Amino acid sequence: MAAPIDFYFDLASPYAYLGSLQIDELAARHGRTVRWRPIMLGAMFKAVGTGPLMQYPLKGDYSARDLVRCARLLDVPIKMPPGFPHFTLPAARGFYWLEQTGAADTAKALAQAFYAAYFGEGRDVSGADETAIIAAGLGVEREAFLAAIQDPDIKARLKDETNAALERGVFGAPFFFSDDEPFWGADRLGHLDRWLETGGW
Amino acid sequence: MAAPIDFYFDLASPYAYLGSLQIDELAARHGRTVRWRPIMLGAMFKAVGTGPLMQYPLKGDYSARDLVRCARLLDVPIKMPPGFPHFTLPAARGFYWLEQTGAADTAKALAQAFYAAYFGEGRDVSGADETAIIAAGLGVEREAFLAAIQDPDIKARLKDETNAALERGVFGAPFFFSDDEPFWGADRLGHLDRWLETGGW
Repeated sequence: MAAPIDFYFDLASPYAYLGSLQIDELAARHGRTVRWRPIMLGAMFKAVGTGPLMQYPLKGDYSARDLVRCARLLDVPIKMPPGFPHFTLPAARGFYWLEQTGAADTAKALAQAFYAAYFGEGRDVSGADETAIIAAGLGVEREAFLAAIQDPDIKARLKDETNAALERGVFGAPFFFSDDEPFWGADRLGHLDRWLETGGW
Repeated sequence: MAAPIDFYFDLASPYAYLGSLQIDELAARHGRTVRWRPIMLGAMFKAVGTGPLMQYPLKGDYSARDLVRCARLLDVPIKMPPGFPHFTLPAARGFYWLEQTGAADTAKALAQAFYAAYFGEGRDVSGADETAIIAAGLGVEREAFLAAIQDPDIKARLKDETNAALERGVFGAPFFFSDDEPFWGADRLGHLDRWLETGGW
């Protein structure tokens, strides 16, 4: 059994949203599964000396335009939420809590539903309450969710996963690994696809 | 007659080197010519708050790897020069001097020969003398070249072109415009190609 593709994403990254809509199908074409790993890009920005893409002059405006072009080509909805970027810690923590409780499918569904609300519909998802509502739509009990995302072990888990990604060389999102070969950006999915097809070049 | 494609490049940018090897043929497929515009990315980095790609931790290492993968896919040579990045002002100034003297083809040939030496062969091209040797290979008289790149008007010309690019929103290289539609990166040539084919989406 070939190793899963590792997919690192920040729930506040619109390019990672575009990646999330493609990676499972791409991997499946090559008989691979995907290991979804939410991370907090802020730690990467600090380590690398960069910052949130949309906050750079010129580059931010260009990226907003590029994102719309990319989404239209993929025929997927995109609507940048007002007040971007939002606070996405609750969703990332909730992901790992769900995964730890054995509900890996629900964890992934939470990330997907969060992305759909955030970048597909442009909804305000900046608070724990809004995230709990999204989770509730997947059958996750609200009070349990709100308690879990304050659990010190869950908080530590997200930090550990982020640090592990950083040690592996992850500095942006989306970021993919096929075995140990790194691919950064939704615009490198074509290369990843070819890598899986050919075994590298 | 459709407007030319504008191609902004820094002679120290390896991704712009990859773009330079593709843009003329791409434009020609759509009946377009290309207006080559060397710029000095340092001004963009200052305005946007970014820095040379290769100097970022993690991101620099990844990019070196990505560049090799991209070049192999394109079947073009790539060899990162030691001591990167080099001082490329002489070549950029020489370009505009040649263009102003009516030798636009030689100006483009200089950029291409410089890129081939720099990133194709990994040669040290960091000084005016090395650039003059490259220019001499195109029939450009050495003393005239060395004098021209110290000419205040030529120095000002490069600054003006760089500022004009910045005002147009250029923040990286390679950067392309189809009319006023911006495309950043050698990895957006596919989008530019499609844009020219369809008129936009």
